[in-house]
Amino acid sequence: MAVGKSPVRKDAVAKVTGKARYTDDFIMPGMLHAKYVRSPVGHGIVKSLDAKEALALPGVEAVFTYEDVPDIVYATAGHPFSLEVDHQDVADRKLLTKHVRYHGDEVAIVVARDPLTAEEAARKVKVEYEEFPVCVTHEAALAHDAPKIHAGGNVIKSHSFEVGGNLDQALSESDVVVEGEFKTPVVQHCHMENHTAYAYMDDHEHIVVVSSTQIPHICRRIVGEALGISWGRVRVIKPYIGGGFGNKQDVVLEPMAAFLTMKMDGAPVKLELNREECLVSTRTRHSTKSRCRIGATRDGALKGIDLDLVSNTGAYASHGHSIPSAGGAKSVNLYPRNVVKYSALTHYANIPSAGAMRAYGSPQVIFAIESAMEDAARAIGMDSVDFRIRNVAREQDVNPLSQKKISSAGICECLEKGRKMIGWDEKRKQYADQTGDVRRGLGVACFSYGSGTYPVCVEIAGCRLILNQDGSVHMQLGATEIGQGSDTAFAQMAAETLGVDYDKIHVVSTQDTDVSPFDTGAYASRQSYVVAPAIRKAALELKRKILGHVREMTGKAAEGMTIAGGKIVNQNRPERVVLDLAEVAIDAYYHKQRGGQLTADVSHKTRTNAPSYGCTFVDLEVDVPMCKVKINQIINVHDAGVIIHPLLAEGQVHGGMGMAVGMALFEELLIDPKSGWVHNSNLLDYKIPTFVDIPNLECAFVETVEPTSAYGHKSLGEPPIISPAPAIRNAILDATGVAVNEAPMTPKVLFRHFSQAGII
Amino acid sequence: MAVGKSPVRKDAVAKVTGKARYTDDFIMPGMLHAKYVRSPVGHGIVKSLDAKEALALPGVEAVFTYEDVPDIVYATAGHPFSLEVDHQDVADRKLLTKHVRYHGDEVAIVVARDPLTAEEAARKVKVEYEEFPVCVTHEAALAHDAPKIHAGGNVIKSHSFEVGGNLDQALSESDVVVEGEFKTPVVQHCHMENHTAYAYMDDHEHIVVVSSTQIPHICRRIVGEALGISWGRVRVIKPYIGGGFGNKQDVVLEPMAAFLTMKMDGAPVKLELNREECLVSTRTRHSTKSRCRIGATRDGALKGIDLDLVSNTGAYASHGHSIPSAGGAKSVNLYPRNVVKYSALTHYANIPSAGAMRAYGSPQVIFAIESAMEDAARAIGMDSVDFRIRNVAREQDVNPLSQKKISSAGICECLEKGRKMIGWDEKRKQYADQTGDVRRGLGVACFSYGSGTYPVCVEIAGCRLILNQDGSVHMQLGATEIGQGSDTAFAQMAAETLGVDYDKIHVVSTQDTDVSPFDTGAYASRQSYVVAPAIRKAALELKRKILGHVREMTGKAAEGMTIAGGKIVNQNRPERVVLDLAEVAIDAYYHKQRGGQLTADVSHKTRTNAPSYGCTFVDLEVDVPMCKVKINQIINVHDAGVIIHPLLAEGQVHGGMGMAVGMALFEELLIDPKSGWVHNSNLLDYKIPTFVDIPNLECAFVETVEPTSAYGHKSLGEPPIISPAPAIRNAILDATGVAVNEAPMTPKVLFRHFSQAGII
Repeated sequence: MAVGKSPVRKDAVAKVTGKARYTDDFIMPGMLHAKYVRSPVGHGIVKSLDAKEALALPGVEAVFTYEDVPDIVYATAGHPFSLEVDHQDVADRKLLTKHVRYHGDEVAIVVARDPLTAEEAARKVKVEYEEFPVCVTHEAALAHDAPKIHAGGNVIKSHSFEVGGNLDQALSESDVVVEGEFKTPVVQHCHMENHTAYAYMDDHEHIVVVSSTQIPHICRRIVGEALGISWGRVRVIKPYIGGGFGNKQDVVLEPMAAFLTMKMDGAPVKLELNREECLVSTRTRHSTKSRCRIGATRDGALKGIDLDLVSNTGAYASHGHSIPSAGGAKSVNLYPRNVVKYSALTHYANIPSAGAMRAYGSPQVIFAIESAMEDAARAIGMDSVDFRIRNVAREQDVNPLSQKKISSAGICECLEKGRKMIGWDEKRKQYADQTGDVRRGLGVACFSYGSGTYPVCVEIAGCRLILNQDGSVHMQLGATEIGQGSDTAFAQMAAETLGVDYDKIHVVSTQDTDVSPFDTGAYASRQSYVVAPAIRKAALELKRKILGHVREMTGKAAEGMTIAGGKIVNQNRPERVVLDLAEVAIDAYYHKQRGGQLTADVSHKTRTNAPSYGCTFVDLEVDVPMCKVKINQIINVHDAGVIIHPLLAEGQVHGGMGMAVGMALFEELLIDPKSGWVHNSNLLDYKIPTFVDIPNLECAFVETVEPTSAYGHKSLGEPPIISPAPAIRNAILDATGVAVNEAPMTPKVLFRHFSQAGII
Repeated sequence: MAVGKSPVRKDAVAKVTGKARYTDDFIMPGMLHAKYVRSPVGHGIVKSLDAKEALALPGVEAVFTYEDVPDIVYATAGHPFSLEVDHQDVADRKLLTKHVRYHGDEVAIVVARDPLTAEEAARKVKVEYEEFPVCVTHEAALAHDAPKIHAGGNVIKSHSFEVGGNLDQALSESDVVVEGEFKTPVVQHCHMENHTAYAYMDDHEHIVVVSSTQIPHICRRIVGEALGISWGRVRVIKPYIGGGFGNKQDVVLEPMAAFLTMKMDGAPVKLELNREECLVSTRTRHSTKSRCRIGATRDGALKGIDLDLVSNTGAYASHGHSIPSAGGAKSVNLYPRNVVKYSALTHYANIPSAGAMRAYGSPQVIFAIESAMEDAARAIGMDSVDFRIRNVAREQDVNPLSQKKISSAGICECLEKGRKMIGWDEKRKQYADQTGDVRRGLGVACFSYGSGTYPVCVEIAGCRLILNQDGSVHMQLGATEIGQGSDTAFAQMAAETLGVDYDKIHVVSTQDTDVSPFDTGAYASRQSYVVAPAIRKAALELKRKILGHVREMTGKAAEGMTIAGGKIVNQNRPERVVLDLAEVAIDAYYHKQRGGQLTADVSHKTRTNAPSYGCTFVDLEVDVPMCKVKINQIINVHDAGVIIHPLLAEGQVHGGMGMAVGMALFEELLIDPKSGWVHNSNLLDYKIPTFVDIPNLECAFVETVEPTSAYGHKSLGEPPIISPAPAIRNAILDATGVAVNEAPMTPKVLFRHFSQAGII
């Protein structure tokens, strides 16, 4: 059994020894460097542009402006292409723009022989702007007299659904109806490796883009679309990547890199953002404002959830309305036996563009729902955990939105387990009726999430397996290792099904769209769920071919044989070794009459989705006068189905919890409401929590077996980030009686709320 | 129809614009450079080695000697691994040697931060040798008291066969029996790009070797064997390559590069030979000495051929006895209706190692046979062309050695065509009875060759096709483009069978053993013949999948449809377009329910071989007192079956003829018989013909249709080099009456022969 163990990560040695090569580790002779000329105004139009001085600088090769780029409006969101026109991403940008829509927008680009010269030259490009009023907030952007950021107006899209019955009726049947307004901030991914890409041409036809991307195959398409060239001419290579979290599920630099190499006759041109650019001019998490109502009866029955959410996508749509759309839909799996009404609207504003970020709308939606759930529990006087256990999904429930049966749901057990781990019942009593400056509180919050994007998007994955002469197997995937450990989990799956040792699976970690099987990449916590069936199918096919060749070699029927421990063995008596796998391989390759190279090349579409679940328990203390929160204990308990690699799963949960603590207590991109200027566009002022700030992170799993999944597993990539923020909010409420309905819950914010509540 | 046309080469633009990247065009940060310490004695043993001074040089990282390398004896010849132990290559070398066997042998290697420092340090390594007697010639190496160059003695192997009857009887039935002794020289390939390779490690397990090689997959195996590591740990990448001609069908540098990167903790280490090293320390063509007897009756019936050949492989076996073995076997297809007796022996000597070189033994064998055939024709008083036409292979003949039927044989037509083109009959009369200093002569010579190595070696090829979203197709092959134009021909084949335009086939030109389908590489004129069925099979499979998806899309039966011009059309009414291929592709990729990425991944073993044929006609003049030859006209006529790309085919023939003229009239590596020192190890003294020296080259084709071939074609890569040398020898004989039975026929050689003959 290879699945369920924790072997050494496939990339562990490469990474800890510094041998792993990232995009910036590759150099090419004659490489040129490009730097954007960025707008210093938040909204406006270029009146004049003068590049003479820049061009005169020695080492400057070219300057291109919005006048030089293709007249093609394209979309950057990293989604698979959709056959449904309505479902295609919003195309709202060109490679460079005359109409600048945020402080940092791109009007021109300089190409020089070295990066410092490019930077200096970019400063020497003189641009005059006509300034327009700047809309930063929801209110400003949606005001009836707001300046139009894009021709179609500032609303991108809105939608709503009402499922499981009629909301008004449900609320009228409720004993209590609670209501709250919630706000979530603009935060940044802060992956270690900034956005970087370079492109070159091998001839006059083919463009190669090497990029730190989560989505090489999607990137290929978008480069083709942005430049108006056949996709087959574009090749995208993804080396090791230093984090993405969704920010590299957007095609930010690659079309420009490709454009520049075409302009520079195929010379390699590199585009590397610095941290400041990366914080402002890539993608952020959508900030939201929402109103949530929850109705319940005194006996603890949740009757209805009503959530109305407004989402700010910033200057360009990017993932746009897909974020609240997905966030809303995925939450329905959590409480499926009641009415859910959900309305959402997404608008433009003159702030950095928001895109995909870990959990894709769910943290925003769940912050509102799980805060309101807490308020409802308190209103009916029921224990928060009990109230949730009463109402969360159970196996065989039917999701009222998708109409699909929920086949595995361990959320009840997660709540029970977490409650026990944190000592909920004893602490609850202990923390009752606190006074004094420092008060302790307990909080809980749940979440549900999906495994992939089906049925909203196509779910396609590919796997190619090659049996080597030494009995080892090379595995090619289109799915991308982005630090989450997917190569390792995939190798375990292949080893499991093939019957060979994990060490014998060599994963081709670099994706190259010319040769890697098609897969849309790392996002939506899709990979382990949707790639697994492709791996399983490929492994079964290769196994069948291997046993078929054994039959040719031995004349014995293949039916009685299987592969175990890298050996062909008698199915019923595995100790009876027929042949070593290497012997079979050597014969298949080199026998003059029979055999051939044994490979399996599989493409698979997943037509199911599986909800994953979990919850966060928090024990914290609030120093009320200091408006400071200290987390004493925080536990995430997950139902992600079967755990493929327990150690990596734990690491994944820790990472998500750390990021969640950042979003809950520390992080926000502070944008000047008048100018659109980002005040803290650097890692000194944008305060992500450090090791000192992060509490000890605990996690546990409830292993269900998801029947639609190849190895019984479900998503775990994004989920750990979803529930900590509302659990922290609920614990602060528990400690202080004050509902802080906005993140981040910094001392400044707490001061405002505590003052209003009169506790300081 | 894509086959039979001459579209622009796939690599034309890349190469003429300088965008094509060769091994030396890649640089890696921290790349180290290695230089061999070479023996200045022709035969001996290292008594002491002192690297202190070298190690003290700033920039020197390490020095490794024969004591540091693995205690593994391996073989370097680029053959597929053989399941028959007797047929495996001769393992006779370690990475470095204490026992030096030629002037240039490798005793140590220096690794430094730059190539100049490495070179300087290599000179500073002090080595003392005990010198042994040096054997350079056949006679010296085979003398009973010759010093043993390898432990097993100086004879590597010998073999013989006698087929088609009994030779003695055949000669006794002959009216004339002619006999001659023939000599062919050591020549060098002189490819433009010297041998170069570098290696690095991605972790502690995987070694990547980038190399200018014809045989990436074989190279992978030999690196594994030489280092004693699993083959699956080795990855070989082959970028564009500047010529090989067989010299890169040997694994010369790659195991050492791999060894060095392992020693240097995975740092990239580069090994680049300079021209002098490339001329001496890579591989050469085996020099041979042979005795040939031919018996014929007065009516022109060839009764028997008896050839006894001795081949000098130099210091290490490399391809060793395979050369005369193949050369002898392949010649039997030429005159299959008579007795052929063939004996060959290969021995070591203290000269540079011989290996594979274009036509692999055939030029040596055919030089003897076709010279003797000329002598026989003269002896029976029959026209040389008529004599050959009478005796060459015809369709339905059975090869007496292989017992296989000859299914296509255009050699008669080739001879008729060439005779007409050169105006043989008229010139023959015109050139009779010449006197004076400058005399003209006519010569002809034929050859037969194989298409690949079956049944001696396994013939395996792979092809993977991927349908792109734009309806174009990516093609991955293990077969290597080495300048011969194979990528272009392969694209034509795929286009032909798939029904798409040639321009829509994107060939992945770089081989990468981690992902490229398995194929043993470019040698034996095998590729077009043995790769074609893999391409055809893959194209048919992809076509079947495409039409299957069309059926899913349209609900119509696939049987009535086909693909033409990149469109799905009605089979009977091709003007009726059902769908564009791009539409089918988009649906297959992105429809949520049906389809998937459409690919075909095929491995194919070829279990046939097809003889190809041809002849050379020469009209030349000899300035007798000056001992100088001037070629007035030279024509090669080939039966290579169906011609896939007429322009490339012509180019291939021109290249081979030019090389043949070099071997016939100019080239020889001059080796000092006492010291083993190569006098002319540079391109100033080793005189390859320049444009000024090469006559106008003419060629023509006789297109037969080979039924065992996927597209009716046969080999053409090496054949053009085989017959020019004997045709030139025969024309000199025709002009002067003097049989110059050795190449190169330089003025110096002619002077000796003309003096002996008394004509000067």
